[in-house]
Amino acid sequence: MNAPSTSRLPVGFQASGTTCGIKVSGKSDLALFVSDRDATAAGVFTTNRVCGAPVIVSKQRVPSTVARAVIINSGNSNAATGEPGIQDAQQMTAVVAEQIGCDAKSVFVCSTGVIGVPLPMAAILNGIPHSVKALGTSDKHLLDAATAMMTTDTFPKLTSLDVALASGTVRVSGVCKGAAMIAPNMATMLSVLMTDAQLTAEQSDSALRFGVDRTFNCISVDGHMSTSDTVLLLANGAVGGSLSDDDFVRVRDAIQQVCQKLATDIIRDAEGADHFITIDVSGLETREAACRVAKEIADSALVKTAITGGDPNWGRIVSAAGYANVDFDTAFVSLHINGTEVYCAGTPVPFDTGALSTQLKSHRDVHLALSVSGGPCSGKQAVRFWTSDLTQEYVRLNSEYTT
Amino acid sequence: MNAPSTSRLPVGFQASGTTCGIKVSGKSDLALFVSDRDATAAGVFTTNRVCGAPVIVSKQRVPSTVARAVIINSGNSNAATGEPGIQDAQQMTAVVAEQIGCDAKSVFVCSTGVIGVPLPMAAILNGIPHSVKALGTSDKHLLDAATAMMTTDTFPKLTSLDVALASGTVRVSGVCKGAAMIAPNMATMLSVLMTDAQLTAEQSDSALRFGVDRTFNCISVDGHMSTSDTVLLLANGAVGGSLSDDDFVRVRDAIQQVCQKLATDIIRDAEGADHFITIDVSGLETREAACRVAKEIADSALVKTAITGGDPNWGRIVSAAGYANVDFDTAFVSLHINGTEVYCAGTPVPFDTGALSTQLKSHRDVHLALSVSGGPCSGKQAVRFWTSDLTQEYVRLNSEYTT
Repeated sequence: MNAPSTSRLPVGFQASGTTCGIKVSGKSDLALFVSDRDATAAGVFTTNRVCGAPVIVSKQRVPSTVARAVIINSGNSNAATGEPGIQDAQQMTAVVAEQIGCDAKSVFVCSTGVIGVPLPMAAILNGIPHSVKALGTSDKHLLDAATAMMTTDTFPKLTSLDVALASGTVRVSGVCKGAAMIAPNMATMLSVLMTDAQLTAEQSDSALRFGVDRTFNCISVDGHMSTSDTVLLLANGAVGGSLSDDDFVRVRDAIQQVCQKLATDIIRDAEGADHFITIDVSGLETREAACRVAKEIADSALVKTAITGGDPNWGRIVSAAGYANVDFDTAFVSLHINGTEVYCAGTPVPFDTGALSTQLKSHRDVHLALSVSGGPCSGKQAVRFWTSDLTQEYVRLNSEYTT
Repeated sequence: MNAPSTSRLPVGFQASGTTCGIKVSGKSDLALFVSDRDATAAGVFTTNRVCGAPVIVSKQRVPSTVARAVIINSGNSNAATGEPGIQDAQQMTAVVAEQIGCDAKSVFVCSTGVIGVPLPMAAILNGIPHSVKALGTSDKHLLDAATAMMTTDTFPKLTSLDVALASGTVRVSGVCKGAAMIAPNMATMLSVLMTDAQLTAEQSDSALRFGVDRTFNCISVDGHMSTSDTVLLLANGAVGGSLSDDDFVRVRDAIQQVCQKLATDIIRDAEGADHFITIDVSGLETREAACRVAKEIADSALVKTAITGGDPNWGRIVSAAGYANVDFDTAFVSLHINGTEVYCAGTPVPFDTGALSTQLKSHRDVHLALSVSGGPCSGKQAVRFWTSDLTQEYVRLNSEYTT
């Protein structure tokens, strides 16, 4: 698998990013992705009980074998807007469908931005025909679309991977937006993945869940789940034929890699963050247990602030693991910080705290590796999780906005 | 029930607070509580899998009908210290037992302070005879003991309540320490409750759990569970006889009130906090579900920072409730902030955001009331929960310490 020098659309996909006037800044706010033929589609959505209208509408349309487009607006999340919000989301898909010539149920919708405010539908309805006219297949079109999804992101997030299969070289491309749920109101993680490989609806769903479980579900900036999180995969089969089992695994792995690049870009763009933290947890009986331990470490304000301050404070890390409600024997816990062993078999290990502190202060990337192998409750499951630190700048950004 | 003008010990209890030299600051670091006769004792402890040696030792000794003393040191938590730490904790109880003339198993031990460092046992063993000599029954003795438990607390936390029963007026007294798990390492919540009422071991346990569930288990500063949290209740029966059912309820309610005063004092003393936040959640089927919703709201960095900034950002509060993994119908959710309705039946309510923001900025106390009554999944259970906001000062305090 090779990453092209720039991010490219797969065969049969077009994209555009335009300005319809939702954002007072005048920045682009309407992204459109269109497949020239029916694609299979799978989606994973926020599990927040309070979810946005676009999530309610799009969720009903997966799995699909007739997917044609995804319309995304930024600047307004159309969340907590009641029944009128659902009608607005439906109308957005209907107008796109009319313009590109398909049924409304072939179109998905996502919205991101301010919560609890009705969508400015006049601007959106006026903007959609322009966004359809602007569609194109170039790298620039993909970049424009990724840019139009941004809210507080500081850079557009997009990537693509080519995968050589027996039946031809397929491409997996993805875009996403997200920089934590930050001011001015609630942001959102949205991602669209596209491939010209031929996947059945079941294969789309299985590959998407495999990838998302290991990437987007393994990141946390502040532990606050958005009402609008959505990841969609469209596979239009424009290249090659149906996949052998081996080729399916290759495409699935490419989808995971694309997801990982996008998910870690969100962490690299986390508001106010000084450190990019990778957490490996191993030696548990289930992936889910390992994930729970990793998430408690990632979400601990005390772990985050210790790293902000360059403090190799292993007590905070080990104690966060301890309250994850996961069964393990503390006598078998060991912890490495940036490769330095600081805790082994439940006992502190003497180490050069000054040197490790200096290293934490001078490097943006931090690696925490917690293992619980060897005990009676241990197993072979491991997860990798990503998070950011917690800085005064994060608090300033999230508290200084006032209505 | 009346709160005495100052906090007083119950009949038959003595206390002392002395300095044995654990803290480099030279502040007092050894607290001792002694009953002149056997008391029943109950305890609740941290559920963190990584727990301190004193927790391991004390936990084995409840429930008890022969409790005589609690020895507490501050400045060192004796946590993550392996088998030698357990021997140290046991030795502390044995030396106190020898001094006051009882069995070691009648003595409980708690430690709070730096983690992963062996206890300075020479200082402690030398200090215990002095702390026994310093024992006394005055208000000053109780205050000294509460002061000797402090780590980063800015004020000692103690209270007492008198309860008039048919058989005489009994007293419930309590002390605690805790100000979040803050720098320099991990702090701890420790509390000792004493009463001269006569409670069986079962009554002690039941009254303690009732009180702790509604108070100490309903506070969160940063969601990070300590390795050493301990609440102990000693009931020595020095006043009156066995309790009628009604009198038991009176004593139990007094224990809850004492717990609530101490627990909310911890929140009022939370490091770097600008706001004291009370969260009422109602209309759920179980107390546990209501508690889970309240805790997600309390632990959300985005809710906390919104309040820090005086921003009545109801979207963050409602969406935090949404990811608590509790079944409720969003169409029946309503929210009041400081008495102002901002969200009703799943729909935003227009309100004067400027006025509410000004009020949030000018008052330390904030009240959030979330109700989910009326839906098919709703019930009559409610909880009250307390938390603090998240300020740049919290981050500064927790990140500026370096090893």
